[in-house]
Amino acid sequence: MATLGDIGVSAAFNILSALVFLLAFAILRLQPFNDRVYFPKWYLKGVRCSPSRSGAFVNKFVNLDFRSYLRFLNWIPEALKMPESELIDHAGLDSAVYLRIYLLGLKIFVPITLLAFAVLVPVNWTDNTLSKSNIVVSDIDKLTISNIQNKSPRFWTHLVMAYAFTIWACYVLLREYEIIATMRLHFLATEHRRPDQFTVLVRNVPPDPDESVTELVEHFFLVNHPDHYLTHQVVYNANKLTKLVKEKKSMQNWLDFNQLKYNRNPSQRPTRKMGFLGLCGEKVDAIDYYTSEIDRLTKEEALEREQIKTNPKAIMPVAFVSFKTRWAAAVCAQTQQTRNPTLWLTEWAPEPRDVYWHNLAIPFVSLTVRRLIVAVAFFFLTFFFMIPIAIVQSFANIEGIEKAVRFLRPVIEIKFIKSLIQGVLPGIALKIFLILLPMILMLMSKIEGFTAISILERRSAGKYYIFLLINVFLGSVITGAAFEQLNSFIKQSANQIPRIIGQAIPMKATFFITYIMVDGWAGSAGEILRLKPLIIYHLKNFFLVKTEKDREEAMDPGSIDFASNEPQIQLYFLLGLVYMVVTPILLPFIVVFFGLAYVVYRHQIINVYNQEYESGAAFWPDVHARIITALIIFQIILLGLMGTKEAAQSAPLLIALPVLTIWFHRFCKNRYEPAFVRYPLQEAMMKDTLERAKEPNLNLKGFLQNAYLHPVFKGGDDDSGYNAPDEDLEQENLLVPTKRQSRRNTPLPSKYSGSASPSSLP
Amino acid sequence: MATLGDIGVSAAFNILSALVFLLAFAILRLQPFNDRVYFPKWYLKGVRCSPSRSGAFVNKFVNLDFRSYLRFLNWIPEALKMPESELIDHAGLDSAVYLRIYLLGLKIFVPITLLAFAVLVPVNWTDNTLSKSNIVVSDIDKLTISNIQNKSPRFWTHLVMAYAFTIWACYVLLREYEIIATMRLHFLATEHRRPDQFTVLVRNVPPDPDESVTELVEHFFLVNHPDHYLTHQVVYNANKLTKLVKEKKSMQNWLDFNQLKYNRNPSQRPTRKMGFLGLCGEKVDAIDYYTSEIDRLTKEEALEREQIKTNPKAIMPVAFVSFKTRWAAAVCAQTQQTRNPTLWLTEWAPEPRDVYWHNLAIPFVSLTVRRLIVAVAFFFLTFFFMIPIAIVQSFANIEGIEKAVRFLRPVIEIKFIKSLIQGVLPGIALKIFLILLPMILMLMSKIEGFTAISILERRSAGKYYIFLLINVFLGSVITGAAFEQLNSFIKQSANQIPRIIGQAIPMKATFFITYIMVDGWAGSAGEILRLKPLIIYHLKNFFLVKTEKDREEAMDPGSIDFASNEPQIQLYFLLGLVYMVVTPILLPFIVVFFGLAYVVYRHQIINVYNQEYESGAAFWPDVHARIITALIIFQIILLGLMGTKEAAQSAPLLIALPVLTIWFHRFCKNRYEPAFVRYPLQEAMMKDTLERAKEPNLNLKGFLQNAYLHPVFKGGDDDSGYNAPDEDLEQENLLVPTKRQSRRNTPLPSKYSGSASPSSLP
Repeated sequence: MATLGDIGVSAAFNILSALVFLLAFAILRLQPFNDRVYFPKWYLKGVRCSPSRSGAFVNKFVNLDFRSYLRFLNWIPEALKMPESELIDHAGLDSAVYLRIYLLGLKIFVPITLLAFAVLVPVNWTDNTLSKSNIVVSDIDKLTISNIQNKSPRFWTHLVMAYAFTIWACYVLLREYEIIATMRLHFLATEHRRPDQFTVLVRNVPPDPDESVTELVEHFFLVNHPDHYLTHQVVYNANKLTKLVKEKKSMQNWLDFNQLKYNRNPSQRPTRKMGFLGLCGEKVDAIDYYTSEIDRLTKEEALEREQIKTNPKAIMPVAFVSFKTRWAAAVCAQTQQTRNPTLWLTEWAPEPRDVYWHNLAIPFVSLTVRRLIVAVAFFFLTFFFMIPIAIVQSFANIEGIEKAVRFLRPVIEIKFIKSLIQGVLPGIALKIFLILLPMILMLMSKIEGFTAISILERRSAGKYYIFLLINVFLGSVITGAAFEQLNSFIKQSANQIPRIIGQAIPMKATFFITYIMVDGWAGSAGEILRLKPLIIYHLKNFFLVKTEKDREEAMDPGSIDFASNEPQIQLYFLLGLVYMVVTPILLPFIVVFFGLAYVVYRHQIINVYNQEYESGAAFWPDVHARIITALIIFQIILLGLMGTKEAAQSAPLLIALPVLTIWFHRFCKNRYEPAFVRYPLQEAMMKDTLERAKEPNLNLKGFLQNAYLHPVFKGGDDDSGYNAPDEDLEQENLLVPTKRQSRRNTPLPSKYSGSASPSSLP
Repeated sequence: MATLGDIGVSAAFNILSALVFLLAFAILRLQPFNDRVYFPKWYLKGVRCSPSRSGAFVNKFVNLDFRSYLRFLNWIPEALKMPESELIDHAGLDSAVYLRIYLLGLKIFVPITLLAFAVLVPVNWTDNTLSKSNIVVSDIDKLTISNIQNKSPRFWTHLVMAYAFTIWACYVLLREYEIIATMRLHFLATEHRRPDQFTVLVRNVPPDPDESVTELVEHFFLVNHPDHYLTHQVVYNANKLTKLVKEKKSMQNWLDFNQLKYNRNPSQRPTRKMGFLGLCGEKVDAIDYYTSEIDRLTKEEALEREQIKTNPKAIMPVAFVSFKTRWAAAVCAQTQQTRNPTLWLTEWAPEPRDVYWHNLAIPFVSLTVRRLIVAVAFFFLTFFFMIPIAIVQSFANIEGIEKAVRFLRPVIEIKFIKSLIQGVLPGIALKIFLILLPMILMLMSKIEGFTAISILERRSAGKYYIFLLINVFLGSVITGAAFEQLNSFIKQSANQIPRIIGQAIPMKATFFITYIMVDGWAGSAGEILRLKPLIIYHLKNFFLVKTEKDREEAMDPGSIDFASNEPQIQLYFLLGLVYMVVTPILLPFIVVFFGLAYVVYRHQIINVYNQEYESGAAFWPDVHARIITALIIFQIILLGLMGTKEAAQSAPLLIALPVLTIWFHRFCKNRYEPAFVRYPLQEAMMKDTLERAKEPNLNLKGFLQNAYLHPVFKGGDDDSGYNAPDEDLEQENLLVPTKRQSRRNTPLPSKYSGSASPSSLP
């Protein structure tokens, strides 16, 4: 194990690199031509617009005011200054609550660190098992639990501390859950009228030979929610159309790029190769090619739109049903509609921005099969991902490359480059896989068929957490690929597994300290620099941007990538909790990480990120559950460790701890989770009544009419005059006569006739 | 292992004892004086009344018609004759569906038995591992999987059969789930108007300083369900009153007994000892004593009733809230009312007969703690129950008894009796525990605080199943007390456990065959004899019965004891499924059990049992889940067994089986379970509309007014003139003025004003 000195050197190096990042950021952000990279949020808000400072031309691109460089860290107090309520207004509840995850880390670990250094470190230090034995030990080992003799009564301290830390963590978690549930409910109560408050997503409308989907939906809800039904929107299968529109847009970009190129150098018309990825094949004139492609796509698009409009099969058995009151929508979302629980499935409609339209077209019957397949695929991905990578690695050897690209052989044969490639190559396949992993997981979640982007992100985050837990945490503790571990764990007895991990844990502390510094400290500092968006923005700016509107589009504020960021934070929670009793020296590093990341992300959320949707902090139950998981892992590992230390009196007392923690989790789940899933009727009724008093003549139907229109039908850039297919139907909605034979004599209930409507629908 | 001959002898013995029981039953049931024991259901239905056959006096007690004895088995076709729809009318859906569990056993196991005997038995028989080895083997072993050589390709047959049997079992389960869900919905749709259809149980009404519970409930629902609220009933804490009434009733019984005794023998007034259990202490005149006791209790009861009426603290924060329509009740039961999900908890009200009043008084906050405690207690009960029993056994030795009851010493000292006691004594503690076990489990479930008897029974059944699984099934397979197994399993690796069980399984087949015959065959035959109720009825008839009404009360039809019967059936499912591939010879015994038990219970349900409540087959999801559990246990054990047989090619293919079975379970759960938990709005609306058309002037409020009155307040035997405390309040219900300060100016919404009600309640 490394000495304190080694860690000091490593820390100094990492602090230095973090400082370099921060310094680079401080300089870059002050340059006006980077303004759209570092402050896009304000542009989107309309507070800032393109550099308009009068003065020299250079001033438009480079900041020459040297005084501003002296205050290069003043973004930190600026980022912390904005009060939370304002932050919620500015960036939404999701972002504000996301920041609270870091704050939660500080709340949990700062007191624990102080207590651990006051009690555990002296207790560990003053025993002297390690110095008695012959192995060479470093100072840092003397601070850990390894320094305590077997069977020592000093383990009572660790036991008490484990209880104290768990209780503190649970207390903080409870408080936080309560605060966030209140914030969410307050947010829902105070926010403006939103279509999703009145709307329910109905899935799996059964096919009917006599009636179209839209008639069927209308009749069903007129009968079963007679006083409350307002209107509905059917969902079209516009996946093909979306693809065409996207393709056309990409072609348009290429056309713009080539035209710009031609304008700059009119002597030579740009060309394009027709083969694979434009790398080989026949050369054609690029501008002509793209123009003809755009024409073709425009025609196809018009045809597809016509197709959707006329073909009844383009209408999915899905609808967004809107009600007259929030109360009625809350009722409909929370109840079962028919005796077959897989038909007429109602759920709270996601925000229009949050809808993942592509999945609405998935037939409901295939969902269970899809989920099974994804679960099995994820299991294999987690435990056996090393196998294909190893195969790729074995293929991608230096000889293979030489064969494939012969003209490079002279370069590769140079000894230095050859050894460099041989050193880097095996790692590359793994690195590429790890970069692609969040995308693979997101794809898996999409295959599962969830209909809201927020849910997809939460599912991906869950998968990524499991992957990190098994491959990063356990994979580092017990060296070896996951499938080897799986094999050995199956062959180990249930009480041996915690012992093996418990024994390995103290030895890996230095590794994880380095990990925290490299990934956590330098990573957070790198995050603020936004190197990738910076480069892409300038490339786009140079090659594509013609108008101010293009510049607006080239600006990519991005968003908090919840699906990959949150599991990474959870890894720090896990490390902190697991090591808090075993190797308290790790704790300060965790605290610094949470502090730094909090400031960095607060700055990013205020100035950069633009959330695509607002889920009202619906992810918090997941965050809470994962911290609880980490607590239980800590307790089990400590139990195993105590077992190897033969602390026979104190170890059995630890068994109660996971039981109590699980119980605490269940308590929290019962108490707070409903706030994140359901919409209480009282709240809905209150808001309804208030609204009715304030705006008695509100035209709600007009407000909701086109709220849930597929974005591709919404007045876009080039087809603003297009009518949504809905509108043709909307006119006759009120009078759709039932076409069902068997009910010819049943009068259709008036929408306002109240409870006297006949329920002749089966 | 036993030979086929041994099993034949055992079978003959058990068949004989079963026949003896059936013969005894056939004779006893024909005696008119046993009529009320064997046909109480018909008395309760009013179809039969006390023996009225004219003729000799003897004919009233003994059946002298010898021809009827010749047809002593004709109750079997009679029992099978009644069609299922009539059975549902006659005995309720719960009983009809309970019978289907046995039928399900036949449906699963008859085809499996045929297939196993056609395929597996020949495959096992024609291999000859066992005859080659030197151990003495019996014929029966040659029929099992043990007769197949290691690494034999014949294991492919077992693999294919395992898949075929699993698929068949799942298919039958799916069909059955579907049928029963339909039966339940049909039952709910066609049954008569019942108060629980309109009523919701509201728990944890928050305390309010300004308003009483009844006012608060009224205001809350008037505001949040303005168009639908009809009336409500608060719940009184009548636990003490119930106890007093019960005590009084017992005293009355004793008084009757003593008076009868005195009437028969007027020369001697009956006396009673005052000490412990009436065994020692001062002698008093029994009639005087009981009369005075009854006087005292009557006074106390009146006081307690007054107390409940006047003391606001006797009103629990619980209410039964009734709505105008089934639709509104379904909505309220399925939705969350306020932002705090632990307040104003609504759930579907159980049937009035099904309410477990005692638990309504439990404060809601204590429920999570109670459940934790019960879970821990149940864990210890399951794994460590042998320890206290062993301690009791060590105390209860012959010397201890001699010391305690000195006067018996001469008797005990007789050698024969001494050895008898010494032989029986150790077993007695265990036997008593096993008899008490269902009661202990029911007590545990009651402590958990569920509010319906049906739920209590289901919870108890779940606990009992786990207990049987661990202590009877695993305890027999791997000999040793549960806590020893627990200890050894913790120390075994995850892949060793199925191997150990798998290896032990074939060797225990004979034991389980005997178990099925003793417990299953003879047990079912004993069930029909009703020995205990027979004796108790005749004792009561002799000592207590004075009038016809007393005789009515002495009759104890009993009911299917779901909590202890269902887990026992599940044990047979488990045995059948586990052995179907390993030792197919066990299957016919299972089939005979299911057939016999089906006939016996069908007879009992038609003629004897009187269900206390009707839950509409709400227990089916549990039954289904437990059979799935048994299937998975079978698959894992087979996997372990194949592992020990070194069937390397075929064994890995078995891993997919549990995954698919779990997925099948999830599919069924999604598809059918909601039918047992929720009430679909469409069904509710249909029934509402139908009723409105049929009976437009129905006084629903009158119907619901006192439906959920604590039984102790209902016009009982001796206090029929008593007014329920409700009624005093009921008069002013419509006009309860709000007493809240802050809302003095808000007009109370009219109940019929529709959506314009102010939602000023927080």
